[in-house]
Amino acid sequence: MIHGHGGDNYKYRVKYDFSSNIVPAEFNKKLLTLISNLKFDFTHYPEPDASQLVRMFQNHYNLPANSTIALNGATEGIYLWAELFRGSRFLISFPSFSEYEDAAKRYGSQVIFCSLDKLEREILKCECIFLCNPNNPNGALLRKEDILKLIESYQDKYFFIDEAYMDLCLSNESLLNYVDKYRNIFILKSITKFFSIPGVRLGFLSFNPVHYERVLLYKYPWSINSCAIEIGKLIFSNFQEIKPNIDDYMRVVVEFYENLKSIKYLEVEKSSTNFFLCKSEMKSSSLKELLIREYKILIRDASNFRGLTDYHFRVSTQTPKANEELIKALCSILK
Amino acid sequence: MIHGHGGDNYKYRVKYDFSSNIVPAEFNKKLLTLISNLKFDFTHYPEPDASQLVRMFQNHYNLPANSTIALNGATEGIYLWAELFRGSRFLISFPSFSEYEDAAKRYGSQVIFCSLDKLEREILKCECIFLCNPNNPNGALLRKEDILKLIESYQDKYFFIDEAYMDLCLSNESLLNYVDKYRNIFILKSITKFFSIPGVRLGFLSFNPVHYERVLLYKYPWSINSCAIEIGKLIFSNFQEIKPNIDDYMRVVVEFYENLKSIKYLEVEKSSTNFFLCKSEMKSSSLKELLIREYKILIRDASNFRGLTDYHFRVSTQTPKANEELIKALCSILK
Repeated sequence: MIHGHGGDNYKYRVKYDFSSNIVPAEFNKKLLTLISNLKFDFTHYPEPDASQLVRMFQNHYNLPANSTIALNGATEGIYLWAELFRGSRFLISFPSFSEYEDAAKRYGSQVIFCSLDKLEREILKCECIFLCNPNNPNGALLRKEDILKLIESYQDKYFFIDEAYMDLCLSNESLLNYVDKYRNIFILKSITKFFSIPGVRLGFLSFNPVHYERVLLYKYPWSINSCAIEIGKLIFSNFQEIKPNIDDYMRVVVEFYENLKSIKYLEVEKSSTNFFLCKSEMKSSSLKELLIREYKILIRDASNFRGLTDYHFRVSTQTPKANEELIKALCSILK
Repeated sequence: MIHGHGGDNYKYRVKYDFSSNIVPAEFNKKLLTLISNLKFDFTHYPEPDASQLVRMFQNHYNLPANSTIALNGATEGIYLWAELFRGSRFLISFPSFSEYEDAAKRYGSQVIFCSLDKLEREILKCECIFLCNPNNPNGALLRKEDILKLIESYQDKYFFIDEAYMDLCLSNESLLNYVDKYRNIFILKSITKFFSIPGVRLGFLSFNPVHYERVLLYKYPWSINSCAIEIGKLIFSNFQEIKPNIDDYMRVVVEFYENLKSIKYLEVEKSSTNFFLCKSEMKSSSLKELLIREYKILIRDASNFRGLTDYHFRVSTQTPKANEELIKALCSILK
């Protein structure tokens, strides 16, 4: 889906953007300062497979050789996986990120949808399962033990586990370090959401090395440009010193959630991460337009997520000041 | 093919790189200075389809609306086209760029090969034709009139015309401005070779607007990152002032060709652009290793191009000083 996502702030002149689920830039000043001092050299081709960066990623997460490829944004990984298993039947729980459906259908595959609580029943009908953990758009988190049970019970099925938001949870339920043990998991990792740099387009897909040669067939060369490679290297060379203070940020997240919950006529789903799925009595398209026009605030109209209604929207936690402005605006609109 | 291309200078510590067909950076100082002063903002998602940049491209080349998409490097366009017509029979003349074959085969399509002089006979066996004009690796240039004749004669067949090196010819045989008139041509355009910035990864695919909606189905969102979009905008906002002086460069090209031709035991093909296909009596893999080790010079071993031999290599024109070093080295090796 080329349109209809969050992060469409380039269309609107807003003051506060709650529409994309990234850590606010204010928590990543160290990295952003380092990046602003980088000198990029564009006069040479980048490595065709960004292999130096991939090795740094594998070392950082203690992964085996040939377990990972670098991606032009996590989105590339979704399409690559859908192509790798084209012709299979894919199971997608709803609500979830719309690109899974788009990717499976692009390659002509059959897609089965079910709510998360029906997953174990529906899993028998498919060969491939898309999981988003924590889940976009509602922040629901599956426990590691529960996914491991699934993976062990269905070793003939392949699981794509999108952990794009895992670094933004206080509880770490990542299966990244299980790729060596299990052959039926593919873990999608984003680093740009955590580091507030979605404009860089950089992600990673990790899997058991038995799949490496086949995965490479679905990569075209030079898909990561020189600047994304340099920024990736900068991050993995300085990870501990520059990583955002997630504890501080998560305190802001909890406060934001409490304040959202206190708004009359607003339902807020419990979330394990920094964004919240909400439902009001006003159509989200109208609420979005009103918030842009009157308050210069952008939210994510979530009505185009399969399984949701015209009244659902999603907001991600921003700075305390911005959060306060949104809470005030919602209080005065939804009364 | 993720490996086995030119531009693999990241592997070797060389002084002069003749392996990739880009204009030397020395001819693009104006743009490179402007880029080094740019401040990139990575804290927001880029536009999912780089649509502002696409409009600037369409305006610059006087193309209709919905005739162009931006690409994460021209390579993305090769794979996208192969996917668009998957299941068709593809004709590829040899020698030519290896990604055409890799792209067609990735989608399970049948590929027919022929030398360029047999094209008209073989064309009846296929539905899609990859043309590279001027051709990589030998710089052969088809005249506009000759391609137009083909296009008009075979209106039920689709032509992919890779014009990545067209800006590096003194004669302009581009069909870019014919996409409005013909529905069966797709023109691939690279701007980063002309502007010495292959590390940016940015290309364009232009076609008749009737294909627009279908082409969009094969693009995943945000494939061009913020920095590639900004550099693209910078180029199309300042094209006339910053473009390299191609007349000066082409004088260096002609001189380089004359000097290459004067080397004993070296065959050099006539080329319409800045790179030359050569054949010596030494295996190219050995010649390449020797030039790296003894002279810190990198050439493109062309033995992996279909239709060529172990003795073929390719060199692209560098600065007069670098060219002189290569000529001297070849003279002392090939005697």
